[in-house]
Amino acid sequence: MSTVKSEGPRSAVVLLSGGLDSATCLAIAKSQGYITHAVSFDYGQRHRIELHFAARLAERLQADSHRVLRVDLRPIGGSSLTDDIPVPKHRSVDELGTGIPSTYVPARNTIFLSYGLALAEVLGAHRLFIGVNALDYSGYPDCRPEFIASFERMANLATRAGTEGAEPFKIEAPLQHLSKAEIIRKARSLGLDPEWTLSCYDPSPEGSPCGACDACLLRAKGLSEADAMGTGA
Amino acid sequence: MSTVKSEGPRSAVVLLSGGLDSATCLAIAKSQGYITHAVSFDYGQRHRIELHFAARLAERLQADSHRVLRVDLRPIGGSSLTDDIPVPKHRSVDELGTGIPSTYVPARNTIFLSYGLALAEVLGAHRLFIGVNALDYSGYPDCRPEFIASFERMANLATRAGTEGAEPFKIEAPLQHLSKAEIIRKARSLGLDPEWTLSCYDPSPEGSPCGACDACLLRAKGLSEADAMGTGA
Repeated sequence: MSTVKSEGPRSAVVLLSGGLDSATCLAIAKSQGYITHAVSFDYGQRHRIELHFAARLAERLQADSHRVLRVDLRPIGGSSLTDDIPVPKHRSVDELGTGIPSTYVPARNTIFLSYGLALAEVLGAHRLFIGVNALDYSGYPDCRPEFIASFERMANLATRAGTEGAEPFKIEAPLQHLSKAEIIRKARSLGLDPEWTLSCYDPSPEGSPCGACDACLLRAKGLSEADAMGTGA
Repeated sequence: MSTVKSEGPRSAVVLLSGGLDSATCLAIAKSQGYITHAVSFDYGQRHRIELHFAARLAERLQADSHRVLRVDLRPIGGSSLTDDIPVPKHRSVDELGTGIPSTYVPARNTIFLSYGLALAEVLGAHRLFIGVNALDYSGYPDCRPEFIASFERMANLATRAGTEGAEPFKIEAPLQHLSKAEIIRKARSLGLDPEWTLSCYDPSPEGSPCGACDACLLRAKGLSEADAMGTGA
């Protein structure tokens, strides 16, 4: 952290869903010495149970604060995560489709990053961590590196950051180019047990994963590959 | 509307607050032949009565649909519009301060545009109207033309628009370079009576303007200048 100025620890907002990727981001932000403000979204998702995982993760990973913001995306619809559209199920990762899946929630990351930006501005944080990664951006437009870079540019025009010669606002996406297996190894190396997280799009009310949605299949494949790579990060 | 393709009328999302500027935008979008989907935000604003004005405006200006989305910005705070911070009051426009006023809501336009973008994507609309203008961007960073242009670029990477060779998404800010007097004349020329709108940041529970906040003072000055300019648009 050679860029940390002398005025002491710096703050970061971390988008925390309760899934493996965002939890790994929180662990990374902590390991880099940031004061971490985790934020989760109650957005009418069918896997709302993930918010319980988020709260427990914030505690276990010692986030300095954790907020749950209510963001009702149901009146907008258009996704199997918030609408009465079935979540696609498959027998293996080989069956995963190409193109944008029905689990894509229109402009969701744009909305979540916007809230994160608002919170960062109020808290005086100049960093925002988001767990987008290579596996997602094959299907979701708002997980692509060029989207993240463009949001960052926009954010610096949207807020005080861009008007008062203040420190620029920066989005950290440390998982962007990692495979799921690499994320799992990174998580474990930072003391984060993947079992603490919930990736499933369609879990039971108690939080048991369905085992057949895209997220479950990619996670299982990642776990098996991480195990094959042996121990260590 | 020489750019309208032959497939018939096109759709636009219009951000509608209940104030003069956004109402004028709705009237402009209607006059340009768009199917108009108005959207308002219940965001914990102290002038929540504006939502009643928005609903009545949507009806009077014949918006094709009108939605109110609940967006709770109060847990974020940082503004006199959503927090227990007094709205600044002045005796005349000459007393208006410089810099970012306390009525600035962190990243509000970014959040509202993000919701508008989500809605546009679901409705298949490629246009989004927002009533930002010159008077606002002297104080609010998220009203500046460079912010709007940057958001538009980001939006085209965030959504299906950017991935399927689809028609680009465009933000229309037709009031951007107009004075308040010019907006008032434009509104009247389109059959919109400014009296139908509420600009005040701190109205009575019944919707009577306070007469002393920045918005009231700028509106009063605009009305008096519009009257001085005579009739006609």
